[in-house]
Amino acid sequence: MVKTDHIGFIGIGVMGKSMAGHLMKNGLNVHIYTRTESKAAELLEKGATWHDSIASLAQVCQVIFTIVGYPHDVEEVYLSDYGIIAHANPHTYIVDMTTSSPELAMKIYEAAKEKQIYALDAPVTGGDIGARNATLSIMVGGEEERFEAIKPLLLMMGSKVIYQGKAGSGQHTKLTNQVAIAGTMLSIVEALSYAEAAGLKADRVLESISSGAAASFSMTNLAPRILKGDFEPGFYVKHYLKDLRLALAFSRQSHIKLPGTELIEKLYTKLEQLQYTESGTQVLYELYRRKLI
Amino acid sequence: MVKTDHIGFIGIGVMGKSMAGHLMKNGLNVHIYTRTESKAAELLEKGATWHDSIASLAQVCQVIFTIVGYPHDVEEVYLSDYGIIAHANPHTYIVDMTTSSPELAMKIYEAAKEKQIYALDAPVTGGDIGARNATLSIMVGGEEERFEAIKPLLLMMGSKVIYQGKAGSGQHTKLTNQVAIAGTMLSIVEALSYAEAAGLKADRVLESISSGAAASFSMTNLAPRILKGDFEPGFYVKHYLKDLRLALAFSRQSHIKLPGTELIEKLYTKLEQLQYTESGTQVLYELYRRKLI
Repeated sequence: MVKTDHIGFIGIGVMGKSMAGHLMKNGLNVHIYTRTESKAAELLEKGATWHDSIASLAQVCQVIFTIVGYPHDVEEVYLSDYGIIAHANPHTYIVDMTTSSPELAMKIYEAAKEKQIYALDAPVTGGDIGARNATLSIMVGGEEERFEAIKPLLLMMGSKVIYQGKAGSGQHTKLTNQVAIAGTMLSIVEALSYAEAAGLKADRVLESISSGAAASFSMTNLAPRILKGDFEPGFYVKHYLKDLRLALAFSRQSHIKLPGTELIEKLYTKLEQLQYTESGTQVLYELYRRKLI
Repeated sequence: MVKTDHIGFIGIGVMGKSMAGHLMKNGLNVHIYTRTESKAAELLEKGATWHDSIASLAQVCQVIFTIVGYPHDVEEVYLSDYGIIAHANPHTYIVDMTTSSPELAMKIYEAAKEKQIYALDAPVTGGDIGARNATLSIMVGGEEERFEAIKPLLLMMGSKVIYQGKAGSGQHTKLTNQVAIAGTMLSIVEALSYAEAAGLKADRVLESISSGAAASFSMTNLAPRILKGDFEPGFYVKHYLKDLRLALAFSRQSHIKLPGTELIEKLYTKLEQLQYTESGTQVLYELYRRKLI
C-alpha cells in the first residue's frame, strides 16, 4: 500500500461527493478542488480541505482522484497548464474515474509517465446509489502494480474493483457496459410497445416475463418507471449519448460493426433533437409512444 | 375446479414429455397422441394411455393440452377434419401451449365456441429446465372463468401462471417476451464484440459488468457459453425466427415500428441463410465474429 495521508478529490458532483465522503470516513485527509465551490460545502464542514487551484491541491497529495463531466473536462483537468500533470509531484497516483475516452486515458498515461506520475483510468458503474453505498463496480486500466498499490482506496468506494489491463482498458470496459445497456433499453421499449399495441396489460405482462429469459436490470428497474410515466433521470440522456458516441467512434476506427448500438445512438440523437437530454434514458419509450421513429 | 379424471396431451417433445409427466405424478389419467409414437414410450411405461388418433383421445378427455412445433401444426391438430374441435365433446377444455400465432389462437377460440368447447392459449417460457422442474411461466389467453377452472392443472406444470386477457393474449404475451429477448441478444453480442476489438479479457469484463445496469439473463447465461464457443441449442435459431416473424407480422399489421426487433430478424435470417438454424440463439455472435453483418 502506498503512503496515502493526503488524498485529492477533484469533481464533487452527485457521485464525487459520496465517493470522497467514503475516503474521509476511512480517516483519510481529503483535499478538494471543484469548479462550483458550493457543492463542496458539506464535505468541508466534515473536515475536508479546500483548494482554489489544482496546483495547490496537487502539491500536497500522494493520490488524486477525479470525476468530472466530459472528456474535454478531463483533458483540461489533467493536461492544461494549470492541470494535474503540470503540478503533481513525481510518484503521485492520478486516477480518473470519469467515463471518458480510452484514447485520452492513454494520452494522459503517456504524459504522466514522462514525469514519473502514475496514471490509472478507473470509471465506475452503479450510479448515485452505488456511490452512496460504496458498492460501485470500478474498472481499472493502467499498470497492474500501480493498481494494486491503490486498490485499498478503491475498495473504500466500490465493492467490485477489477483490473482490466493497460491504460485505457478501464474506459473500454465501461464503454462495453454502455454498449450492453443499448440492447437492454431496446428490449424493454420494444416489448412495452408491442404489449400496448396488442391490448395487453403491461404490468401483468411484466409479471409473466420479467424473471425469465428476457430478464434484465432495465426491465426490472426502468420498465416500471416507464409505466408510471416517470422519466426522471437515474442516468441522463446527454451522458448516455456521450458514451455511445465514444463507443461508436472506437468501433468505426476498429472496423467492427455494432448495428444495434448504432440504432440506439440514432434514436437517442432524435431525443436530443427533441430536447430530452435532461431526462432519464428510459425516455426512449416516448419516441415509440409518440411514433417518432 | 372442473372434473379432470382424464387429460389428453398431444405433442410429446422435450417440453411435452416433462409437462405430461407432472400431470401423471399428480395422479391424473393421461392420454397421449403424438406423431412419433416412440417419443411416448417412457410415459406409456409409467401408465399413460396411447391413442392412435386425435379423435379417439378427444372422446375420452375433459381437458386436452397441446404443445407442437409450428402454427401450421397447431392448425392441423385443432382445425382439420381429424382434429380436436371436430371430435371433442362439448364442455371440453382445450389448451394450446405451443408458441404460435395470436390470430390463429383467436380463430381456434371462435371455432371451439361454436361447439361449446372452451379454448385457451397458454404458451410457456422457461425452456426444458422449467418444464422438468415445473417452474414454467405460463401466459394464458381466453375467458377468465375457463382459465380459473383449469388453473390447478397449469400449476402442476408451472410456477408462474398468469391470466393475460381474451383469446390470443397468451400468445401476444409470449411474443412480447420474444421481442424483449431480441434486445438482450444484441446487447451481449455487441458488448463481446466491442470488448474483443478493444483487446480486453472478456471474462474479466463480464465480471465487472454482468451484475450492474447492463445485467440480463442473456449476459449471465449465454455470454459465458459464447466465450467457450458453445453454440449448442438451449433455444433453436429456427424457433426464434418463427417467433420473431410472428411478432413482426403483428407489429406491421398494427402500424407500430420495432426497429430493434427488425434488426434482429434480419441478423437471424442471415444465420438461416448460413444454415445455423439448428444452433442455439447465442450463435448470433458468429455473425459478428466472422464480420458477416
